Amino acid sequence: MVSSPAGPELDHLMKLLARLPGLGPRSAKRVALHLLRKREALMEPLAEAISAAAQHVQACDICGNWDSRNPCGICEDEARDTGVICVVQDVADVWALERSGAHHGRYHVLGGVISPLDGVGPDDLNIASLAQRASAGGVTEIILATAATVDGQTTAGYIAERLEGIDVKVTRLSHGVPMGGELDYLDEGTLAAALRSRQIF
Amino acid sequence: MVSSPAGPELDHLMKLLARLPGLGPRSAKRVALHLLRKREALMEPLAEAISAAAQHVQACDICGNWDSRNPCGICEDEARDTGVICVVQDVADVWALERSGAHHGRYHVLGGVISPLDGVGPDDLNIASLAQRASAGGVTEIILATAATVDGQTTAGYIAERLEGIDVKVTRLSHGVPMGGELDYLDEGTLAAALRSRQIF
Repeated sequence: MVSSPAGPELDHLMKLLARLPGLGPRSAKRVALHLLRKREALMEPLAEAISAAAQHVQACDICGNWDSRNPCGICEDEARDTGVICVVQDVADVWALERSGAHHGRYHVLGGVISPLDGVGPDDLNIASLAQRASAGGVTEIILATAATVDGQTTAGYIAERLEGIDVKVTRLSHGVPMGGELDYLDEGTLAAALRSRQIF
Repeated sequence: MVSSPAGPELDHLMKLLARLPGLGPRSAKRVALHLLRKREALMEPLAEAISAAAQHVQACDICGNWDSRNPCGICEDEARDTGVICVVQDVADVWALERSGAHHGRYHVLGGVISPLDGVGPDDLNIASLAQRASAGGVTEIILATAATVDGQTTAGYIAERLEGIDVKVTRLSHGVPMGGELDYLDEGTLAAALRSRQIF
């Protein structure tokens, strides 16, 4: 438990830090002490950086990606292929795909997946705006890159249905053996998918 | 590595977050995304809490403990035994001892240990102010509670020498078997210390 004889400001700070992912009460205490030790080099810049990000970083009106520009840097980048839209659940997925360097088109961030158990329906996600983008013209392909989970695939299925009638090719990421994956350690579902979608060598 | 197509504010925030203890580039990214998702509930309050702590929390002029008051709450607490001072390396040690509830006196935070390899000498620590407190009268016992490391014990030895000639009892924490400690898993040094300072049952 966090407990300190250090006054309300520090107690409050530690309670907030303990709510960050990956930190608990003990590591929050450690972080707070570290911050106080590096007051000028780290603590004050961090407070400013959090404020600045909270003020300036916003969701792109077109694709939902987070950026300090609106439209975001990816939507504004004229060098990218404007005809291909990759649909992902979350901003973190945009970053992951950008790291891979394999997608040169644009993105559409849904903001989650359809999940009846969590009370998330299609109207809670950015699906209507995707349909608008798809039908506005100029879009040739929509890549559904939701997670390979039940909810992710349900969401992909729903979107594919919703896009029916619009003149656009709808594709999805392939399922199969991950790079470096040893067959012995893979689940049966992945192995079955890899076999089903086998390709000519 | 941290890399994001999300603008300079977010990149800067992630770089600072990655410097917190226990966080690396990947978890810093996760924390930054979490903050952006909980903008009003967590992100803005956290920026304010860090600022407030940086402004208000300071080292106590008497003992070196961190508090929003100066002198700190422990030094001001009249119900505590003013004659016993427990000497610790760091503020985190004050908190640990307070959690134990076993010390009812005051503290003196050294701010580190003597460590020639790191260039830390006696003058870099709050040792002179400890000698002043000890000789100012009213102090009956100084408990040396530095770590049971080579540097910690060297520092304790130095302080004990420095306090010679002042009419005060100088003690140190006992070494021995920790609670729940199985002998088989303990190092020889601890076992030897526990044997040497054995007590009548």
